[in-house]
Amino acid sequence: MADGVLRKKRGGGRAAHMARRGTAAIAQMPWAPPRNIDRPTEPLTDEGIAAIHEGAMRILEEIGIEFYNDEALALYRKAGCIVEGACVRMDRDFVMEMVGKAPDSFTITPRNPDHTIEIGGNALLFGNVSSPPNYWDLELGRKVPGTRAQCANLLRLTQYFNCIHFAGGYPVEPVDLHPRERHLDVLFDKLTLTDKAMHAYSLGRERVEDVMEMVRIAGGLSHEEFDATPRMYTNINSTSPLKHDHPMIDGCLRLARRGQAIVVSPFTLAGAMAPVTMAGAVAQSIAEALSAIALFQYVAPGVPCVIGTFTSNVDMKSGAPAFGTPEYMRSTQMTGQMARFYGLPLRSSGACAANVPDGQAVWETSNSLWAALQSGTHMVYHAAGWLEGGLVASPEKFVMDCEILQQMQRYLDPQITATTADDIALDAIAEVGHQGHFFGVQHTQDRYTTAFYQPFLSDWRNFEAWQAAGAIWTPERAHMIYKDIIASFEEPPMDPAIREELAAFVDRRKAEGGAPTDF
Amino acid sequence: MADGVLRKKRGGGRAAHMARRGTAAIAQMPWAPPRNIDRPTEPLTDEGIAAIHEGAMRILEEIGIEFYNDEALALYRKAGCIVEGACVRMDRDFVMEMVGKAPDSFTITPRNPDHTIEIGGNALLFGNVSSPPNYWDLELGRKVPGTRAQCANLLRLTQYFNCIHFAGGYPVEPVDLHPRERHLDVLFDKLTLTDKAMHAYSLGRERVEDVMEMVRIAGGLSHEEFDATPRMYTNINSTSPLKHDHPMIDGCLRLARRGQAIVVSPFTLAGAMAPVTMAGAVAQSIAEALSAIALFQYVAPGVPCVIGTFTSNVDMKSGAPAFGTPEYMRSTQMTGQMARFYGLPLRSSGACAANVPDGQAVWETSNSLWAALQSGTHMVYHAAGWLEGGLVASPEKFVMDCEILQQMQRYLDPQITATTADDIALDAIAEVGHQGHFFGVQHTQDRYTTAFYQPFLSDWRNFEAWQAAGAIWTPERAHMIYKDIIASFEEPPMDPAIREELAAFVDRRKAEGGAPTDF
Repeated sequence: MADGVLRKKRGGGRAAHMARRGTAAIAQMPWAPPRNIDRPTEPLTDEGIAAIHEGAMRILEEIGIEFYNDEALALYRKAGCIVEGACVRMDRDFVMEMVGKAPDSFTITPRNPDHTIEIGGNALLFGNVSSPPNYWDLELGRKVPGTRAQCANLLRLTQYFNCIHFAGGYPVEPVDLHPRERHLDVLFDKLTLTDKAMHAYSLGRERVEDVMEMVRIAGGLSHEEFDATPRMYTNINSTSPLKHDHPMIDGCLRLARRGQAIVVSPFTLAGAMAPVTMAGAVAQSIAEALSAIALFQYVAPGVPCVIGTFTSNVDMKSGAPAFGTPEYMRSTQMTGQMARFYGLPLRSSGACAANVPDGQAVWETSNSLWAALQSGTHMVYHAAGWLEGGLVASPEKFVMDCEILQQMQRYLDPQITATTADDIALDAIAEVGHQGHFFGVQHTQDRYTTAFYQPFLSDWRNFEAWQAAGAIWTPERAHMIYKDIIASFEEPPMDPAIREELAAFVDRRKAEGGAPTDF
Repeated sequence: MADGVLRKKRGGGRAAHMARRGTAAIAQMPWAPPRNIDRPTEPLTDEGIAAIHEGAMRILEEIGIEFYNDEALALYRKAGCIVEGACVRMDRDFVMEMVGKAPDSFTITPRNPDHTIEIGGNALLFGNVSSPPNYWDLELGRKVPGTRAQCANLLRLTQYFNCIHFAGGYPVEPVDLHPRERHLDVLFDKLTLTDKAMHAYSLGRERVEDVMEMVRIAGGLSHEEFDATPRMYTNINSTSPLKHDHPMIDGCLRLARRGQAIVVSPFTLAGAMAPVTMAGAVAQSIAEALSAIALFQYVAPGVPCVIGTFTSNVDMKSGAPAFGTPEYMRSTQMTGQMARFYGLPLRSSGACAANVPDGQAVWETSNSLWAALQSGTHMVYHAAGWLEGGLVASPEKFVMDCEILQQMQRYLDPQITATTADDIALDAIAEVGHQGHFFGVQHTQDRYTTAFYQPFLSDWRNFEAWQAAGAIWTPERAHMIYKDIIASFEEPPMDPAIREELAAFVDRRKAEGGAPTDF
């Protein structure tokens, strides 16, 4: 199929491609993180919320969570929890007291303060795909291990699209970079190619400390300024069922002590690492998340913490994970209700199991993105560019997802449903009467340029016009837009002295040996 | 692209295709029309509802609606409305009194009573694409005028899929049949190939009377039995702005007098046939719909009437209609609020502007289907098979849409979010502990076959397995499923005597000249 698409492109498709040249890149919506004005979809009754809470608390009290981190075990012991080996049991009073210290809303200020994001309230924020080890694009036509160059191009998309509000983890893992030095090179790329809120992987002391230092340098901040307010964030997954690993907890503790934001996202696949029932999988996920958040609040009361959900189901015939399923949607909504119950901001994801950016990819991704909106999610991870259950990053999928995200942003514009007398437009209706049309009337002329969402990727031409322009399907159109964006990309401005300081830091840390690779 | 896809199919794709042979057709969800358990999304405040109602009433009172139908004009005059030429002005007391006579819920009983549908309450029903003049499939690779054979195949899909709850208009217009006889042949095909709730076009006396008679014969009903309860329905569009045409009103009056159901769906494209503001377009749509519904209630108090919405926006650069846009979603939700205000069931649509079943087609269609669910829609027209703004029917799109519809049915299954002790599964969580997994435990074994939605079209295999099976994209998989369904299709049972009576009716009416073609 990839061949077929590109062959077409070399034919009629070229005309359309050329026609777009000169505009340099697409017209897109301005930077304007949306406010989620819809009432959340809430499948749980109050009794349902209480039942899941009770389940989560009993998991923490009776079964416990294992922490493979000695510092964490010492801290829990000090806090009065029951620690036996690696297993920590904590009572609900402790957990609820600690969780109650977390703010329900906070900001992250990146090196460009215009791209500051507020997490909480009715904010809805989108981030790029993070951490796929592999890459696929239409021109390549096959799945390959990620490279630094591909990673940098996906970072350019992350920066280019205003509907991407924060930079996630590496948009593809650049396996051509040695793991010892990878975080240094990619963070240099991230910090120079984007100026949005920055992420650090919690994968060992050196990586976390290096990234904090690079974010500080890039922001032109003193250590005190860095510590004063969140400048970045991390995201950790528990090792379900009921475990937290050493480097994730270590990284979070380092960030917590410097006031940076932490997202805890258990990956509870129902039927595999969690019960086959969604309520059970959600209860387990809540327990895993709260156990860690309680620790971070104990160490740094008031540090920003976000509860993440990654509860989906497996294909019970094969054990393969599925995403954007009906069960995934409901568990996301359920976790949203629980997050509001605990007063914590929520993270969910844009996800699919599809291997290529086809119809399945879009219905699975649409389902997961609508679930994010319906659940009251604040941070949508992987909102653009994800394929194959997160194992593949694709620039075409990235561009397609941004068209969906822009539509969601516009959907949340209260202007659409305004009902002033001007909106009801009785005078215009009377003026047009029974025989006319509304194209020419002043009421339309005054409003038509901003009345409707204008897509950059959807092709609204009729079949014949679309055919005459090369009969180009969505993924190929996305491919051409991707190429245009990369070709015309301009790096966000950075003080040359800061850039030099960043580069010098990278050189020095490489000379020192980078980070250990035994994580 | 079509070539590329089919070339692939003749390669590796064949293996997957063959592997599926022998099962005859896909495993799908049973017939079980869903209940919409979600609270509707309601962007309008009470004041907003009042403002749109006020606008609609003032349109009816001050501007009026034109009816090109002398019988209707006489009826309005008799009812005390102000009739000047074709323009009817009616006061709100009359309109609200008449609309108040319409039931908020009713049933349609097709020839197979097991496929009886309830319209109203929290029902959510899906129907096939209706009325595209053209057809496209992947094998053909181009857009062609519809034929009876293509129409019959789409009817087979309509019957086959349990997530399609009612038969809409012709799923493609068979232009190889003379318009004089077309309704006779297609209704014969519809009534023999499907046994679901049946639709008649309101296109002149003969067509409506013929279809009512054929539905009566197919149901083995006396005239009295036919009249006693709805056996079928029609759908009409107003001629926006503010007009109703002769044949539509004529057909509805005929159905109303025999107690059959009527859907009135203005097609108010904001910026073209309606104000550029969504509130104005919705107010106009409401006025157009209520004006006709008031007439039908005046003639046949209590006859089932459904208010339809087809408010979308145009591309203001080209005037081309767009579907599944953010504005479309909100206007659908707004009309849902108005329908509940008037106590009328709601019809909306599954729609897209895309020309082929690609990513754009899916995000536009998903948006419109989610809007249907969020709005409290009862009848979703065009829920499967629609492309190019309704100008093209496609079997691949039909199959893809059914995968989306099945997911929505499953999404509405309250079982997913149940929170009994069995669902919280504390014992299973304790049993698995920190080191195991849930695949093998009894709690999973007892539930895994029904715990999750099982797709028939989504491919959840990993990239390598998917590639080994031919790297088949969604539309091609849908094409193969379509072929399988057609190849193994079995007509629903029909008494041979009834079939003979139907055929004889068709022959007689053809001999009499069929229907006039000057509509």
